[in-house]
Amino acid sequence: MLVLGIDPGSMITGYGLVEKKEGHISCVDAGIISSPQNSPFYDRIHNIFRSIVEIMHRYKPLEMAIEDVFFAKNVKSSLKLGHARGAALIAAVDCGVKVFEYTPLEIKKSVVGYGRATKEQICSMVQIILKHPKRFGPDTSDALAAAICHLNWTRYK
Amino acid sequence: MLVLGIDPGSMITGYGLVEKKEGHISCVDAGIISSPQNSPFYDRIHNIFRSIVEIMHRYKPLEMAIEDVFFAKNVKSSLKLGHARGAALIAAVDCGVKVFEYTPLEIKKSVVGYGRATKEQICSMVQIILKHPKRFGPDTSDALAAAICHLNWTRYK
Repeated sequence: MLVLGIDPGSMITGYGLVEKKEGHISCVDAGIISSPQNSPFYDRIHNIFRSIVEIMHRYKPLEMAIEDVFFAKNVKSSLKLGHARGAALIAAVDCGVKVFEYTPLEIKKSVVGYGRATKEQICSMVQIILKHPKRFGPDTSDALAAAICHLNWTRYK
Repeated sequence: MLVLGIDPGSMITGYGLVEKKEGHISCVDAGIISSPQNSPFYDRIHNIFRSIVEIMHRYKPLEMAIEDVFFAKNVKSSLKLGHARGAALIAAVDCGVKVFEYTPLEIKKSVVGYGRATKEQICSMVQIILKHPKRFGPDTSDALAAAICHLNWTRYK
């Protein structure tokens, strides 16, 4: 079972492909999607959509896990986040990939064990769970954490 | 010159195609995009994207005008609005249609003459400017107003 986790952001969107095979969980690919800082906002949002579609065509995940956001720092940042998150959702539905949403609390509990985990703790636990030689960045770790949460939640073998 | 105006919203998205020919301005098509109330949020956002792509394939507008939003009622509603607005931007860039953004003040000034116009006044002025036999609904009127603003601003013949 291959799952794509997404951590959306208008500046940096993290992605992580996690596979569960015979009870073992591993990272197939992970990284970030970003655009040149001076590119128009609509081009940046389209780049997120286009990049996720490309990842889906390349790896053909069956399901996508993404954080269910209810709040952001302020109205302006939540507007921007909404655009980026929308790009990920549209890419998934357009590619026929099923969408699963988890609250930040569910993701943190699933990966670290409790809901108030710090960014640092998520990065550490994601590296340990995936037995990865190097530590992932915070955006990539959040994306991988969403995918791990989904695999734990659904109890795929 | 054919321009598509969009008034994005996660429940109802208004659209309006306005053409300027030899100084005359008219409505080619206008309406709303909505989804069944019980459909998942991601399907509603994808439906906005898909519907705008279809409109663009059918009418082939060269440019799209959309409100530049800086604020919303609260963080939750701005998150939802961001998703819907993102869907419109992605559709435009994906179809090679140029995006033009105008503040609510610019749109109101351009259509009604001053920046504090009410929804009612916008509906009335849009109907008068387009010499349309019937009054458009508020979402359709806002979309048409964005397109009219763009045509006024760019001074296309």
